[in-house]
Amino acid sequence: MQAHLIALDWGTTSLRAYKLGRSGQVLDQRALASGIMQLPTTPRTIAGRPCGNGFELAFDDACGDWLAAEPHVPVIACGMVGSAQGWREAAYCPTPARVADLGASLQTVETLRGTVLHIVPGVIQHSRLPNVMRGEETQVLGLLCDLPADTRQDSLLIGLPGSHSKWVSLEEGCIQRFDTFMTGEVYAALCAHTILGRTQQPSAGFDEAAFIRGVQVALSPDGTLGLLSNLFSARTLGLTGQLAGTEQADYLSGLMIGHELHALAQACRERRGEVGLPQVVLIGSVALCQRYQIALRLCGFAQVGLAEQATERGLWSLAVAAGLLAPLPEEV
Amino acid sequence: MQAHLIALDWGTTSLRAYKLGRSGQVLDQRALASGIMQLPTTPRTIAGRPCGNGFELAFDDACGDWLAAEPHVPVIACGMVGSAQGWREAAYCPTPARVADLGASLQTVETLRGTVLHIVPGVIQHSRLPNVMRGEETQVLGLLCDLPADTRQDSLLIGLPGSHSKWVSLEEGCIQRFDTFMTGEVYAALCAHTILGRTQQPSAGFDEAAFIRGVQVALSPDGTLGLLSNLFSARTLGLTGQLAGTEQADYLSGLMIGHELHALAQACRERRGEVGLPQVVLIGSVALCQRYQIALRLCGFAQVGLAEQATERGLWSLAVAAGLLAPLPEEV
Repeated sequence: MQAHLIALDWGTTSLRAYKLGRSGQVLDQRALASGIMQLPTTPRTIAGRPCGNGFELAFDDACGDWLAAEPHVPVIACGMVGSAQGWREAAYCPTPARVADLGASLQTVETLRGTVLHIVPGVIQHSRLPNVMRGEETQVLGLLCDLPADTRQDSLLIGLPGSHSKWVSLEEGCIQRFDTFMTGEVYAALCAHTILGRTQQPSAGFDEAAFIRGVQVALSPDGTLGLLSNLFSARTLGLTGQLAGTEQADYLSGLMIGHELHALAQACRERRGEVGLPQVVLIGSVALCQRYQIALRLCGFAQVGLAEQATERGLWSLAVAAGLLAPLPEEV
Repeated sequence: MQAHLIALDWGTTSLRAYKLGRSGQVLDQRALASGIMQLPTTPRTIAGRPCGNGFELAFDDACGDWLAAEPHVPVIACGMVGSAQGWREAAYCPTPARVADLGASLQTVETLRGTVLHIVPGVIQHSRLPNVMRGEETQVLGLLCDLPADTRQDSLLIGLPGSHSKWVSLEEGCIQRFDTFMTGEVYAALCAHTILGRTQQPSAGFDEAAFIRGVQVALSPDGTLGLLSNLFSARTLGLTGQLAGTEQADYLSGLMIGHELHALAQACRERRGEVGLPQVVLIGSVALCQRYQIALRLCGFAQVGLAEQATERGLWSLAVAAGLLAPLPEEV
């Protein structure tokens, strides 16, 4: 089936490519490890020319064959590919940022193949401690495209778990404010590079009980000593035979996500006063969203939903708004 | 001058050796990188026998020449050398632990050279989240040996900053309770293995202003979102030109120590009620204690002192109590 758009979700550690059909439906997709911090390095010939540029190589891996078959399909990308360390910097748009309008600020780079890559800008919040996002703004838009028209956006909190999880508040189609937690990246560093990882053993699957135990410690009176102190319990509960090696990774995950969400819930209560905790919609990998769903409920968030295909939908919507798609003669 | 005791402070990443004279004064000392997790691996001959045991090799590096000159000097060690991953496990003593009595529970291992190494046990607190220490109990004893007799121990909080900082409360010569914070080890992992390290640049020395700024963020309303969120500001303040690369490491250090001490101060207030914050005495490296002194004052701890040579004094005191020292004929 004919491709109408190639959409790339190009982050720090991964690159996902989608071939989208006439109405934005996914015709084909692939996932590569060629994030901007781990680009390919082996030179080869692309479009008849020798090439050693990692961005070109990764781009060609992601969609070179699709473009060879259909050279005039437009291409759009979001994520860290637009950062200062990316292929070309797409300046941040400040909050309040109307996500549907981001298509008016696309950055471009011409690739070796002659195709122009359009890059979505990120969003910056100039708070006392600034916050930035790249890629999540597109997912938020994808979610908005799917929301029933009568949804009260200001009673919604959008959660995007990941290496750096984002929590986004909206108002009338604008990203009004957001917070970042480095939970995922710190978790990975602790498991790989501290004493906590040494006694962890692989478990058969997600150990929900160990995870919940970690969340509950974060919410308990012991949690008030903070994460830097609670972390040590992953070791000492192991030392004293109260936490098996196979339980330690999920316990630690629960401890960290629990601290993230406990702080988030407190901030929501302060900001919203008597209205209580907002409805949450999560966007992210199924496995990670499962953890966050469990922990959110333990933290008192009563309504938690999941959004799917938010990136593809958001990129499609921005490409349409930017006029990248060829008009469809059949639809005249 | 004749040695009366060889005292080893043998931790995870370092090994310090002290040759002590008749009244416990330091005659010679050396510092090696041969902690129990980075023991030497090149076999060689020790006391006429081939040896590939890392503990033996490190022990010989630390004090082999001292023992060759004076073979009958007793040797005592504290720290992770007595852990399950150490040379020989010295079982933990539970709290409340009378530190002066720990000499009655020394573990022993006979070395290749024929010298018996005496190992001080650690202390365990069987709280809901257990806590353990190895080495710090000896430093606490060293501090106690130096305290004026009329000191009110129960109004004292002993801080031992390090990879895992410990905060110890005493009562009548006993370790009554203690808390652990993994601040140092987590800081090292974040600098070396997360995005936060990528934009850090070496600074000419300790940047006190950047450090204080980090502490103040932890104590500010922004601090209530927790460390996992605040961490990201080390990146975004850099991105927005508000924090130079050379300031980022000390800012991060202030942020983390600030979160540790803010939580500690809250716990002290809860435990002590109206009495207010306790007097603090710090034991540790000069550079790290300087940071903690600054941050403690910002957190409201009004009285902060430093203790020196606590390890040597503690090991000496335990060796005396255990009867390891030969009687001194001149003193009859």
